[in-house]
Amino acid sequence: MTKIGFIGLGNMGVGMARNIAAKGWPLSVWNRSPSKAESFAGANVAAVKTPAAAADGADFVITMLADDAALEAVTLGSEGLLSRLAPEAVHISMSTVSASCTRTLAAQHAAAGRLFLAAPVFGRPDVAAGAKLWIAAGGAAALVERCRPVLEAMGQGIIHVGEAPDQANVFKLAGNFLIGSMLESLCEAFALLRKHGVDPRPFHELIAKNLFRSPVYENYGNIALSGRYEPPAFRLALGLKDMTLALQAAQESQTPMPVLSAVHGNLLSAVARGLGGLDMPAVIRVVEENAGLGDAESA
Amino acid sequence: MTKIGFIGLGNMGVGMARNIAAKGWPLSVWNRSPSKAESFAGANVAAVKTPAAAADGADFVITMLADDAALEAVTLGSEGLLSRLAPEAVHISMSTVSASCTRTLAAQHAAAGRLFLAAPVFGRPDVAAGAKLWIAAGGAAALVERCRPVLEAMGQGIIHVGEAPDQANVFKLAGNFLIGSMLESLCEAFALLRKHGVDPRPFHELIAKNLFRSPVYENYGNIALSGRYEPPAFRLALGLKDMTLALQAAQESQTPMPVLSAVHGNLLSAVARGLGGLDMPAVIRVVEENAGLGDAESA
Amino acid sequence: MTKIGFIGLGNMGVGMARNIAAKGWPLSVWNRSPSKAESFAGANVAAVKTPAAAADGADFVITMLADDAALEAVTLGSEGLLSRLAPEAVHISMSTVSASCTRTLAAQHAAAGRLFLAAPVFGRPDVAAGAKLWIAAGGAAALVERCRPVLEAMGQGIIHVGEAPDQANVFKLAGNFLIGSMLESLCEAFALLRKHGVDPRPFHELIAKNLFRSPVYENYGNIALSGRYEPPAFRLALGLKDMTLALQAAQESQTPMPVLSAVHGNLLSAVARGLGGLDMPAVIRVVEENAGLGDAESA
Amino acid sequence: MTKIGFIGLGNMGVGMARNIAAKGWPLSVWNRSPSKAESFAGANVAAVKTPAAAADGADFVITMLADDAALEAVTLGSEGLLSRLAPEAVHISMSTVSASCTRTLAAQHAAAGRLFLAAPVFGRPDVAAGAKLWIAAGGAAALVERCRPVLEAMGQGIIHVGEAPDQANVFKLAGNFLIGSMLESLCEAFALLRKHGVDPRPFHELIAKNLFRSPVYENYGNIALSGRYEPPAFRLALGLKDMTLALQAAQESQTPMPVLSAVHGNLLSAVARGLGGLDMPAVIRVVEENAGLGDAESA
Repeated sequence: MTKIGFIGLGNMGVGMARNIAAKGWPLSVWNRSPSKAESFAGANVAAVKTPAAAADGADFVITMLADDAALEAVTLGSEGLLSRLAPEAVHISMSTVSASCTRTLAAQHAAAGRLFLAAPVFGRPDVAAGAKLWIAAGGAAALVERCRPVLEAMGQGIIHVGEAPDQANVFKLAGNFLIGSMLESLCEAFALLRKHGVDPRPFHELIAKNLFRSPVYENYGNIALSGRYEPPAFRLALGLKDMTLALQAAQESQTPMPVLSAVHGNLLSAVARGLGGLDMPAVIRVVEENAGLGDAESA
Repeated sequence: MTKIGFIGLGNMGVGMARNIAAKGWPLSVWNRSPSKAESFAGANVAAVKTPAAAADGADFVITMLADDAALEAVTLGSEGLLSRLAPEAVHISMSTVSASCTRTLAAQHAAAGRLFLAAPVFGRPDVAAGAKLWIAAGGAAALVERCRPVLEAMGQGIIHVGEAPDQANVFKLAGNFLIGSMLESLCEAFALLRKHGVDPRPFHELIAKNLFRSPVYENYGNIALSGRYEPPAFRLALGLKDMTLALQAAQESQTPMPVLSAVHGNLLSAVARGLGGLDMPAVIRVVEENAGLGDAESA
Repeated sequence: MTKIGFIGLGNMGVGMARNIAAKGWPLSVWNRSPSKAESFAGANVAAVKTPAAAADGADFVITMLADDAALEAVTLGSEGLLSRLAPEAVHISMSTVSASCTRTLAAQHAAAGRLFLAAPVFGRPDVAAGAKLWIAAGGAAALVERCRPVLEAMGQGIIHVGEAPDQANVFKLAGNFLIGSMLESLCEAFALLRKHGVDPRPFHELIAKNLFRSPVYENYGNIALSGRYEPPAFRLALGLKDMTLALQAAQESQTPMPVLSAVHGNLLSAVARGLGGLDMPAVIRVVEENAGLGDAESA
Repeated sequence: MTKIGFIGLGNMGVGMARNIAAKGWPLSVWNRSPSKAESFAGANVAAVKTPAAAADGADFVITMLADDAALEAVTLGSEGLLSRLAPEAVHISMSTVSASCTRTLAAQHAAAGRLFLAAPVFGRPDVAAGAKLWIAAGGAAALVERCRPVLEAMGQGIIHVGEAPDQANVFKLAGNFLIGSMLESLCEAFALLRKHGVDPRPFHELIAKNLFRSPVYENYGNIALSGRYEPPAFRLALGLKDMTLALQAAQESQTPMPVLSAVHGNLLSAVARGLGGLDMPAVIRVVEENAGLGDAESA
C-alpha cells in the first residue's frame, strides 16, 4: 500500500494532509512545532520526530512550508528528508518558493539519484480542506503520472507546466502576481473614487458581481472596504514575499514587469510601515495615505 | 409622448439609439457623417442636419461621442444642441470623457439654465445592442429619476454615483482603469512564462475559467494569445485615451496611482510604436519586445 | 529709444525687471497686486493699471507669471496685452508654462498679426537678480536676433531651441525634470542609507562636492538633510506643476518616461499630504514615510 | 615590511595593484587567467598560483572582483584566501558586491577568527590608475586606521561609513544608483526633446557645462549622443548588476525606491534586447524605441 510522508502542517498543509489521510494510506507527519503533528495523529497517521523519519519507508514525501529557508532546512538539513528518501520514492514539493530554490533542490535530488517533483498549489485553506486545489506540476511527464493519484487526493485539477521543476514555480508566481495586481489596482480605484467624493461600495458591487465578476475582486474588495484586517486570512508580509519571488523570476529571465514593480513597491511600503501582520488588503492604507486620505475615510 | 434627440451613431451609439427607437418614441438622430443617420432613419426616426436640430422640441437629448472635443463641439458649437435645448429638457451625456470636460459642460448648462446629466456606460457594442449596458449616473437624484425610463431602455442597471456630474465620469474611468490593469498584468504574466519556456495557454485557461474567472481575462487573453489584432474590437489608442483621462482625474484629485502610471506607460509606448490602430491586447507586443521576445514567440 | 512693458513682478520677475530698468529703457510694469508695481516704480519706470496699458506703445512686452491660467488671462483677457500690442512689437513670454499653452498663445498672436517669442528661463531668484539667467528661445531666428539685446539684459546665455515657440517650453521642462529626478533620487538614496543605519551626511558630502559635483545635489541635499523647509525657496507645489507639465509634453509627443512618472508620483503624494507649501526638498518626507522612517530620522 | 596579497587584476584591479607595487611593498598577485598575473610580476611583485598563496604571509589581502560569486569563490573555496589568512592579517574586500555577500563573508571571517574590512571604491579605471579613488570603508574604526596606509596608496579619500562592513556596500550602491538615475533621466530628456523635434545637443551642453555641471551628465551624455557604444568603458550588464544589488538592498531594508525600479526596468530591458555588452549609455536605445524613435534618430 502507498505510504506517504507529509511535512508542514500549517494552514494549508493541515487540510492537504487530512485529505491524504482520508484515502486510508499510511501517513507519517512532521511539523516544526510537534504539538500540531501529535494532535493530528490518528488511525493511519503517525507523528514522527524528524523530517528524515517522515521519509523513512515512504513512497511519496510531500512538503508544504512557508518559504525557501524552511523548505531547504527540512530537505537538506542533517536530519532532512533527502538523507532517508528511497531511490524509487518521490519528493513532491508543494510550497510557494522561488524558482532558484527549486533549481537547487532539483539539482541536489538529481545528484543523490532521487526523484523530485515541484507541485505548488492555488487555493486558500478552505479550498485545501475541500480537496479543491489547482496544482501546477513541473517535472517529467512520467513522474507526474506516477504522482497523479496522490495529487488528485488534494486537488480538483492538475496542470503539467513543463519538464523543468522550476517552471511550475514560475507558473504559480505568475498567478499570485495577478492576484496582487488586482488587489492593488482595486485599492487605487477606491482611492481615486474617494478623492472625488464617491462612495466606492456601489463601484465594488458593480465590478465584482456584474462587470468583471471575479472572486478576487469580490473577496479582497469586501475586506479592503471593511477596514478590518485582523485576524489575517493571508498575511500581507506573505503577499510581499510572493511579489518578491516573482520579481526575482522576472530578473533572472530578463522580463521587465512594470506593474509588478508598482505592486511590489506599495506592499514593501506596507511592511515598512508595520502592516505586514495584517490581512493583505490592508495595502489600501498605503494607497490612501499616499493620497492624503486619513484614517476616517478608510473606516 | 416623450421626444428624444440622439447625437452620435458610432459603434456604441447605433445600438443604443436602436433601443430607444424600439420604444416607439419619436427620435431625431444626428451623426457627423450624415449617411449613417440617413440609413438609420425609419418609422419614428428622423435624420436631422445639425445637433441643434436634434435638440429641437426634444425632452431628452442623448450624446454618445468619441472624445472631449467631439462632445464639446456638438454641445457648445454654433449649431450645438445647447442653443436649442428647451428649459425642461435634459442633456444626457453618455460618452467616456474627462471629468473636466463634464465640469465645463455642466457649468455651461447651469449658466444657460438648462439641465445636464452625466451617464457614461459600461459595455461593448454587442452589450449596447442588447440593451444590457451598466449606466453610471451623476447628477441630482430627482434628475436621475426623471431620466430613468430613457436610461432603462438602454441598460440593465443604473448606479447613481453622486450629485456632481463629473463623479460619474470618474466612476467610469476607474472601471476602465481596472480593465487596462488586468490586460497589462496578463501580458506581463504571459511574457514571464514565455521567458521561462512555459506555454501561457494552460495558464490562461486556469486563471480565466477556474481561478479568477473574469470575462476580461478570458476575452483579452484569447486575443493576446491569438496574435490577431485586426480588425480591432476596441482600438488600442482608445484604451490609451481612457488611461490618460484616468491619470488626469488622479492628477486633479492628487491620487498617486502607480499601477495606472505603469499601464499608461506601456500603452503610450504601443501608440508611439504605431500599434494604436490595433485591438487593445496588442499591447502585449510592447511587453514582449521589452523582454527581448521576438515576433516568433508571440505568433 | 526701446520701450518695454513688463508683466509679473513675482520672485523672478522683480529681478528681471530691475535689470531691464537698469538699462535706462522706459519701462511700464504691471502686477496683479498693484502695491508691488507701485513700489517698483522709479526714474524710468511707471506702474500701470492693466496688462493692456503695459503693452501700450511698447516695443517689447515681457511676461513672467506663475502658470498657464495667469499667462492666458494677462494676454487674452479683456484688458489683456494682446489687445494693445503694436504690429511690430514682440510679446516675449518667459514663464514656465505648458507647451500647449504656448501653442495657443502663438496661434492667437499669429491670428492677430502680432509677434510672439517663447523664452523661458533657468535660474532661481538670486540668479535672475544677477542677470545670470540661461534663456531658451523658441521662434524664428530673426525674431530671436531682434529680441537679443533685451534678453541679454537679463541673462548670461541664450539658446535658440527651434523655430516653434513651444519647443522652448519643452526644453525648459526637460531641464526641470532633471532637477526633479536628481532631488527624488537623492532622497531615495538617503532613505536607503538611513534604513541601513548609515548617516547620509558623508554620502552627500562625497557626491555633491567630489564625485558628481552638481550644485543641484549640493543645495537640495543640504535642505533635505536640514529638515527645514520653511520659508520655501521654491514651493513643492510648483515642482509638482513642472513635473505635470513635463508629463503632458511626454503624453502629447508619445514619449514614455518612467523616471518622470515616478518623480511625479511622489511629488503628487507630497501635495496630497499637505506639503505643497514647503520647500521642494520636503519630498523626502514622502520617501521616508513610505520606508517607515518616522519624523525623528529626518530631523 | 608590509606584505600584501592582491586578487583580481581586471580593469580596476590592475591600476590599484600597480599603485600598491609602487610603494615598494612586497606583493603577491593572483588572477583567474594566469597570464595577466605573470605579465604583471616584477621587482617586488610575484605571481602566485592560488588565492590561498596570495594570502600566505600577507599582512593585507585585497580582493577586487567582478561579482558576488567570484568573491566568494576566491575567499571561501578550497584554495581560497581565508584558508591561509593569518590571525592578524586583514582581508580588504574592495569589489562592488551585494550587502548580503558581505554579511556572509564577514560572518565567515569572524567564525574563523580573522579580520575583514569592506572597502568598495568609486572611480573608473583611469581614476584607479591615478590613485584617485574614493573609498567607502565599513568596519571597526581601529581596523580602518590599520588599513589606512594601504587604502591611501590607492585613493584620494577614505570615508568611514560605519561599523558594519555591509554598510559600506550600501553606500557604494547608493552612489551607483545616482549614476544610473542621472543616465536614464538624461536619456528620457533627450527622447522628449527629439520627439518634439528639438536637437538635444544644446540641451546637453547647457545642463552639463553650465546648469547642473556634473561630469556624469557630461560624459554619459556625450556617449549617448554619439551613438557609439563600443568598446564599452563600463558594460551595460554591469550597470544592471549594480541596480539589481541596489534593489536587493532596498528590499532587505524595506525601502521603496520608485526611481530605482524605473531605472532598473529599462536596463533590464536593454539586456533582454541584447545590449548588455555595449557601453552603459546604450540604454538610450530602449528609451528611444519605447518612444517609437527609430535608429535614424539616435545615429
